[in-house]
Amino acid sequence: MLAADPVLVDVVRAGDVIDGLGKHVMLHAGPPIDWARMCGPMKGAICGAAVLEGWAKTLDEAEQMAVGGEFSFHPNHHFGAVGPMTGITTQNMMVFAIENRAFGNRTYCTLNEGLGKVLRYGGNDDEVLERLRWLSTELGPILAAGLQALGGLPLKGIIARGLAMGDEMHQRNAACTSLFIRELAPSLARSVADGEKLGRALAFIGGNDLFFLNIAMPMAKSIADPAMGIEGSSVVTAMARNGTEFGIRVSGTGDAWFTAPCEIPQGMYLPGFSEADANPDLGDSTITETIGLGSFAMATSPAVAGFLGAGSAADALNYTRAMLEITCAQNPEWTIPALDFAGLPTGIDIRKVVETGSTPTINTGIAHREAGVGQVGAGIVRAPFACFEKALVALAERMGVS
Amino acid sequence: MLAADPVLVDVVRAGDVIDGLGKHVMLHAGPPIDWARMCGPMKGAICGAAVLEGWAKTLDEAEQMAVGGEFSFHPNHHFGAVGPMTGITTQNMMVFAIENRAFGNRTYCTLNEGLGKVLRYGGNDDEVLERLRWLSTELGPILAAGLQALGGLPLKGIIARGLAMGDEMHQRNAACTSLFIRELAPSLARSVADGEKLGRALAFIGGNDLFFLNIAMPMAKSIADPAMGIEGSSVVTAMARNGTEFGIRVSGTGDAWFTAPCEIPQGMYLPGFSEADANPDLGDSTITETIGLGSFAMATSPAVAGFLGAGSAADALNYTRAMLEITCAQNPEWTIPALDFAGLPTGIDIRKVVETGSTPTINTGIAHREAGVGQVGAGIVRAPFACFEKALVALAERMGVS
Repeated sequence: MLAADPVLVDVVRAGDVIDGLGKHVMLHAGPPIDWARMCGPMKGAICGAAVLEGWAKTLDEAEQMAVGGEFSFHPNHHFGAVGPMTGITTQNMMVFAIENRAFGNRTYCTLNEGLGKVLRYGGNDDEVLERLRWLSTELGPILAAGLQALGGLPLKGIIARGLAMGDEMHQRNAACTSLFIRELAPSLARSVADGEKLGRALAFIGGNDLFFLNIAMPMAKSIADPAMGIEGSSVVTAMARNGTEFGIRVSGTGDAWFTAPCEIPQGMYLPGFSEADANPDLGDSTITETIGLGSFAMATSPAVAGFLGAGSAADALNYTRAMLEITCAQNPEWTIPALDFAGLPTGIDIRKVVETGSTPTINTGIAHREAGVGQVGAGIVRAPFACFEKALVALAERMGVS
Repeated sequence: MLAADPVLVDVVRAGDVIDGLGKHVMLHAGPPIDWARMCGPMKGAICGAAVLEGWAKTLDEAEQMAVGGEFSFHPNHHFGAVGPMTGITTQNMMVFAIENRAFGNRTYCTLNEGLGKVLRYGGNDDEVLERLRWLSTELGPILAAGLQALGGLPLKGIIARGLAMGDEMHQRNAACTSLFIRELAPSLARSVADGEKLGRALAFIGGNDLFFLNIAMPMAKSIADPAMGIEGSSVVTAMARNGTEFGIRVSGTGDAWFTAPCEIPQGMYLPGFSEADANPDLGDSTITETIGLGSFAMATSPAVAGFLGAGSAADALNYTRAMLEITCAQNPEWTIPALDFAGLPTGIDIRKVVETGSTPTINTGIAHREAGVGQVGAGIVRAPFACFEKALVALAERMGVS
């Protein structure tokens, strides 16, 4: 993980780069799940995506097709991808492509749709779908032109700078979104002739502090994936939630998922909403915590601690310190100014989790439990202990430990 | 000061907006000074500016003209302007124009030239002058077009965000430079048709973390100026250094300067240089400390504390805490996440300085003491105690206090 060299290389049509992502195939967040057990927002996003792709004329028709088994559902993680919240990925969506140049692997994630009513939170009305079409037809190609002109954007240094600017890269991406614009703007100016379209693209990106999240996520997966399948390793290589179940993967047990029911985040709610409206924990975005960002980097971001209802600046330091107890390294290149440039806690060791009883904390958005509503808040949630216990038993069995 | 509403409204030719800035007039940093007593870098910058303006053909000829009394020298501060380091401002340079919309006053500052050999540090060779010509003929007009299309850029919110991203706005402007690009890029894309020129402009700005300093400085002056001339007020309204003398102005004593010899900063030196090469403290940039930024905001920026040789993250907090002892308010809108969102110490009270013996600390660049060399380091310096003592005596006399 520490040897990774992630580079944002392109923006491409998902169906062109993800093998098997054809008609009626839908990728979703978290471990495997069938339609019947999916949460409300995931069902809502699936219906929206079916209309977006032209597989159904209406949301109702889409739901009937889903119930009738006409769609094939798979985790993003099985296809080299990740997606925030519901995480629905279909063939005509544009995706960021990350290449880990130290290991040669590639990963993908859809573009961030902005705030408010959006597909990733289960939104699926005309406004949501219209924005998704614009992402595919206008913003995606503009970003592709800029990235190609630049020859790719190395991310390791940008994350290091973002950490010194208060981003933990999960719920706060204000700095990295700004740095992304700063790095890409010269190439965009030179490669996009239509000033009006370019202006619209730059205003859209600049209007959303979370735009960079959808780059940080596949970057994190590109860093974690090469660590999969190391014989005897007890390091977590993925954490992900489908809104019903939380799943983890561990290096020494390959691609197996170890799951437990998702918990409800503790957090701050938007006006008019409360915990009663909250869907259980959802999304692939906790791949950021898997490599030491997000809640693990809370010390860098007292601002996000306040936003999530996680307390004061001193409390923010304690979140990071607690994660030092369950990880096996500190990242020498990604450091925290407020802890006198100590490295991020990196590489969750399931043995340490089981031994201490302390599970990873996760900074997360909170979706409404019903389809079509959207985000209702943001907060903190813990990965369920049972995932780690099951994984440790499986690893021990595999290694012949009685 | 707290009621100010500074807006970056335009980029304009200095001679068009600064009354009296005509042929052979040179504005400089700090309190008034004549040629004979000026420091090396200021003399170097003056000779460079004379060649730039076409008043002299060579640097030697420029020096002879200066010695012969052909140039008229005045502080930037007497003309509504400020300038970093040597601070030389002449008629054909482009300047940022700030309007404090709460009070209607305007202030000005030249564009930041980037790092390395530059006029503000006393550089004056062809490379330096060529860059200054490009700032006037290409970058300035591009920024003007973008700002006019945007209708001006309000700065109060940008500073608030920058503080949450580790800028103290004097020696660290990494976040605000990024936010400036992010805010302006859409308008630039729509108003600048030549993509190659726009790309060059965006790359130049993005290549220099200190670009925003030359916006923060006139913003600070626009905030401080309306506080001048309040009967009986003991609040400092300007601090500035010409490299020979440090001067302060105090509200209740109007436009009088109280001066003392400049000190040598304690800091970190670039390879090959040491304190023996350092010019005494120089520049108008300590207008940022005058309104609570810079060293007063050190707590927000452990990264800059390290850069300046000022110690650890805990030390950074202590710099800000110390300035609470000599100021009369905390800014409710500009806050420091690491101090649980305490407001910046604002409004230096000369009575508190004299009573405690604690003078303002200043984060500063360090120039070589000779003309034509440039920056040799960065560090911390204190405002001389004698300035505050003299000002307090003058204020007391004016108020009839025996």
